[in-house]
Amino acid sequence: MIIVMKPRATKEDISRVISKVEKRGLATHLVEGAEMSIIGCIGDTTRLDPKLFEVDEAVDKVMHVQEPYKLANKAFHPEATVIDVDGVKVGAGHLALIAGPCSVESTEQVLAIAKEIKASGANMLRGGAFKPRTSPYAFQGMGLDGLKILTEVKKEVGLPIVSELMSAEYLDDFNEHVDLIQIGARNMQNFDLLKHLGDIDKPILLKRGLNATYDEWVMSAEYIMASGNENVILCERGIRTFETYTRNTLDLQAIPVLRKMTHLPVVVDPSHAGGRWWLVESMAKAAVAADCDGLMIEVHNDPENALCDGAQSLKPAKFTELVDQIRAIASATGKSL
Amino acid sequence: MIIVMKPRATKEDISRVISKVEKRGLATHLVEGAEMSIIGCIGDTTRLDPKLFEVDEAVDKVMHVQEPYKLANKAFHPEATVIDVDGVKVGAGHLALIAGPCSVESTEQVLAIAKEIKASGANMLRGGAFKPRTSPYAFQGMGLDGLKILTEVKKEVGLPIVSELMSAEYLDDFNEHVDLIQIGARNMQNFDLLKHLGDIDKPILLKRGLNATYDEWVMSAEYIMASGNENVILCERGIRTFETYTRNTLDLQAIPVLRKMTHLPVVVDPSHAGGRWWLVESMAKAAVAADCDGLMIEVHNDPENALCDGAQSLKPAKFTELVDQIRAIASATGKSL
Amino acid sequence: MIIVMKPRATKEDISRVISKVEKRGLATHLVEGAEMSIIGCIGDTTRLDPKLFEVDEAVDKVMHVQEPYKLANKAFHPEATVIDVDGVKVGAGHLALIAGPCSVESTEQVLAIAKEIKASGANMLRGGAFKPRTSPYAFQGMGLDGLKILTEVKKEVGLPIVSELMSAEYLDDFNEHVDLIQIGARNMQNFDLLKHLGDIDKPILLKRGLNATYDEWVMSAEYIMASGNENVILCERGIRTFETYTRNTLDLQAIPVLRKMTHLPVVVDPSHAGGRWWLVESMAKAAVAADCDGLMIEVHNDPENALCDGAQSLKPAKFTELVDQIRAIASATGKSL
Amino acid sequence: MIIVMKPRATKEDISRVISKVEKRGLATHLVEGAEMSIIGCIGDTTRLDPKLFEVDEAVDKVMHVQEPYKLANKAFHPEATVIDVDGVKVGAGHLALIAGPCSVESTEQVLAIAKEIKASGANMLRGGAFKPRTSPYAFQGMGLDGLKILTEVKKEVGLPIVSELMSAEYLDDFNEHVDLIQIGARNMQNFDLLKHLGDIDKPILLKRGLNATYDEWVMSAEYIMASGNENVILCERGIRTFETYTRNTLDLQAIPVLRKMTHLPVVVDPSHAGGRWWLVESMAKAAVAADCDGLMIEVHNDPENALCDGAQSLKPAKFTELVDQIRAIASATGKSL
Repeated sequence: MIIVMKPRATKEDISRVISKVEKRGLATHLVEGAEMSIIGCIGDTTRLDPKLFEVDEAVDKVMHVQEPYKLANKAFHPEATVIDVDGVKVGAGHLALIAGPCSVESTEQVLAIAKEIKASGANMLRGGAFKPRTSPYAFQGMGLDGLKILTEVKKEVGLPIVSELMSAEYLDDFNEHVDLIQIGARNMQNFDLLKHLGDIDKPILLKRGLNATYDEWVMSAEYIMASGNENVILCERGIRTFETYTRNTLDLQAIPVLRKMTHLPVVVDPSHAGGRWWLVESMAKAAVAADCDGLMIEVHNDPENALCDGAQSLKPAKFTELVDQIRAIASATGKSL
Repeated sequence: MIIVMKPRATKEDISRVISKVEKRGLATHLVEGAEMSIIGCIGDTTRLDPKLFEVDEAVDKVMHVQEPYKLANKAFHPEATVIDVDGVKVGAGHLALIAGPCSVESTEQVLAIAKEIKASGANMLRGGAFKPRTSPYAFQGMGLDGLKILTEVKKEVGLPIVSELMSAEYLDDFNEHVDLIQIGARNMQNFDLLKHLGDIDKPILLKRGLNATYDEWVMSAEYIMASGNENVILCERGIRTFETYTRNTLDLQAIPVLRKMTHLPVVVDPSHAGGRWWLVESMAKAAVAADCDGLMIEVHNDPENALCDGAQSLKPAKFTELVDQIRAIASATGKSL
Repeated sequence: MIIVMKPRATKEDISRVISKVEKRGLATHLVEGAEMSIIGCIGDTTRLDPKLFEVDEAVDKVMHVQEPYKLANKAFHPEATVIDVDGVKVGAGHLALIAGPCSVESTEQVLAIAKEIKASGANMLRGGAFKPRTSPYAFQGMGLDGLKILTEVKKEVGLPIVSELMSAEYLDDFNEHVDLIQIGARNMQNFDLLKHLGDIDKPILLKRGLNATYDEWVMSAEYIMASGNENVILCERGIRTFETYTRNTLDLQAIPVLRKMTHLPVVVDPSHAGGRWWLVESMAKAAVAADCDGLMIEVHNDPENALCDGAQSLKPAKFTELVDQIRAIASATGKSL
Repeated sequence: MIIVMKPRATKEDISRVISKVEKRGLATHLVEGAEMSIIGCIGDTTRLDPKLFEVDEAVDKVMHVQEPYKLANKAFHPEATVIDVDGVKVGAGHLALIAGPCSVESTEQVLAIAKEIKASGANMLRGGAFKPRTSPYAFQGMGLDGLKILTEVKKEVGLPIVSELMSAEYLDDFNEHVDLIQIGARNMQNFDLLKHLGDIDKPILLKRGLNATYDEWVMSAEYIMASGNENVILCERGIRTFETYTRNTLDLQAIPVLRKMTHLPVVVDPSHAGGRWWLVESMAKAAVAADCDGLMIEVHNDPENALCDGAQSLKPAKFTELVDQIRAIASATGKSL
């Protein structure tokens, strides 16, 4: 951390700030210039809050040089992490291909879809049992009954289950029935929930918040890791911008940036980002070309009558075509599905 | 709701969509034009999900005409709602003046600040016991001990208490000790938490999410109201934009817009929006001139050593000056503090 | 400017960067720490491009400590600048009250409006002769004929004229007929046009671009000033955010921030920001309470039939009421209109 | 266009609005419902300004059904347009591969780079002669001398020239020396400049503004086309969002969306979007996988000493590698370079 003093800062001001830093166990280096003085803080500044210093009237700016995260930081863990989701590996060249309906509606529905996506090449099944909806009057999901259906389908079809957890109240149920626990965009900074995830060691799929910076997103992963669960997969699903034609703006630069920042796998959800099925194909292909570790894609066998988000769901036949195209791109970039 | 069919839609397409609407208990009106046909849906469309229709291949656009909220809607409740916070009225000309430290640090600290702000004219005391922090390594608040301190101070100073709830786990504690329960920006769409708030009838201060539209914000109030608690106050605290000089961009247009949309009171928090104490004064005055129903302002007696957000806290003397200026503006606009 | 070297930077790397800085006429100070080295650059870094150093593979970050602008910088010109617009002073307590129609439609229209707003207390007349329109098919303004009408009305009513210049082609016409030349939001970074404004010394009203940071906006003022014309007034008119209920989000924090950054006057246009007439009143009052140096408000005597932006125009009677309210707030904050 | 009347609108209100529509040469259809009435406008509504109707007090909402552009509209021109840039075809499967330095610095520099990129497979040469810079103190480009250098290099190497025009003043020079005239992001809504481009028939590369919606961007293309020049290529180069780690957020969803909206070719510039050379590779590959019609990539033989934007420039060897990878992806998606 670097503390830049204001031009008019006195020697007393500088000593006061230096002693405030040193009280927190760090060493300091002072550069005194004609126009300003700078205090360099040497040591582990991860846990140091820049605001503690910004508040001083003689301080002009405080700048972080080190990243504020440790466990998720690639600098301290250079090899890419591979997460094992009930036997399916994700990361370091292993591509997750998660598909399934937005919400669980019935055993028949989920079973039919699961068989089709497995045949096409998907290696995990997604299905929402608890649904975060903007309106209290919209369908809120089948709840625990939905989890039961997913468990039954898993027995028959054999794909690991991905489903969203919205409250710590159901943590045990999810830990028992779900293989990859999704934390939705709107809960990315539900810090209470993140801490509870440290009580289990099930893999977590942490979606990016609609307005989360890369730093904040990785810090939320750090919350889970610091609480005791290091099995975190990040999922880009679009950010909110001024553009309203698409539901959100898919930020594929997240892939190379996160590769620099962290060793955790990065999966992309093109279905939620765009909100329209005809955007999914090209964005899924782009994500794979940009070297993501997996895709999460909504597939529904009857999107016209889906209880939720039908507009962004692919039909199984379309999904099959897409998987073929993805295979071609994966192989052109030296990967395999 | 209005459904615009694509130019090439056939009679069969139109009948299919009409019957889908009518199955949901609404009447329809069809306009057939040379270039397109339009289906008007008549009845209570609040609970109708436009996506159910957008997914149809013959549908071009679906547009909401009625707002998707009812209980919070000014159209169905034209008079401004007044919320009673342990004897302090908020709304319809009654201004809330909430002040206090970002976080509770000790009885002495909170007591000293509470006395000063009361003397200056504040009518509620804020203090964070549970703190949402981006970093797991930052100070997370004193927890239940913090609530105890607030309760003690209330006994001595007499101001109603405002504090942030981050998890339904502590709902009973907050219901017992807190007079106005704050839901923070990052939990505005923690729908599980919102539903639990319907179990009590304590007033709720619902902060706007950093990326929440007006509609989404009012829908979150609607969640609480539909769950059984109609005592909701809205709090504008800045939105996230491309501008990074300020922490967030304070959106004061929210005041007149919410006046149109809803009957609920609207309070403004200029401290969190800007993130710098010297922005608070002019924004507090602007908010009152724009006809808000109250202010929430951070005040700390030793901001240089505050454990959290000192940079945005006013010292008590500065707060006293500000209250005088606010009084002048309130009286110039026909209100009183 | 501070250059932070990467942890693995060698002595050679550091010397290379130091010599690159010193070649540009600046002195350097080196801090060598256990984990990183930092080079402080001392001297006039305004003209130094940080990207020249960021590109070095051994450099981690480059941070500006000084602002990149000089002529507009309050640090070098602490007193507030007062701009004289044909006898009307703006800045340092002198409030501009600019009113008039979005576009000039006829002599009768402009004359009628000019008389009414003057009677209400406006001290300048605005009217668009050249109109920037998103669509090539929308009304583009009366052009030079519009300027003629404004000149005639000025002769009769006596208010200085404010009008938007879209191309250097008409610079001489504007210099002759217009008293305050407006540069619209979409041209804020039309650098070629900005440079031409240095050829005259007419006051310039520089609107903030829809996506311009404070720094970029002040840098555009610096362009005009560095080209030879120091008579610049800044005008906040809303920025583009994710919120679409309002046309743009009015950023009133711009007022206190610009007060810190620059000595130039700051005017607010609440009509364009919100895009709806019923948002103008509360935002105009808020802007004055937040200590702006003036307002620009659209007034039309027949908004239902206005050729442009009727929806955001006040009728003259409404404008008169507003001026009374503004007077009350101005006087409550120690100013006069 | 659809006009939704307010619930309390009277018969007189409705007739007034209908007659306002019909005066403009359109037919109307009225749906009268229990809760609201809707007026459908039938005919060419492209040139109808919705604001003319929104301003009426009895009108609730006005919604466009047809897109407001015609010449650029895919609906009226279903086949993809192919633009010929001095013999190099762009669009409908023909990929542009534009490469070169951010700014022209000397004949030697441009010549060396041009030879290398041609050998790697580039089919056009970019080089800035006039540079839009945020600061008036930054290098502004070599101007007309830069154009001369590009012309010389073209003679020797044979690649068509792409360069940015910032002012109509130099239109003739560009028309003579440049093969594809670039309009930069900051001038996307410099409507005066757009109109002048209709005077020539040289192909135009229209970059997306930092805050431009898809609609606004296509409307700017429509400006050029309506002025007489239909040779327009669109270039996505990132939009401004809250994320500041990257310079801008590259919006690759623009590719499939623009494919729906328009018949014009769509090129992607990954260098400016990210602002860092190590983001270019994955984003270039993603753009090709997403089916763009070309790439524009900054290449510099000495980025450490580039006068502008070195941080985002690839070295020639890196560019050669990238072209090989792009070829593999293009061929996996059935295209060829």
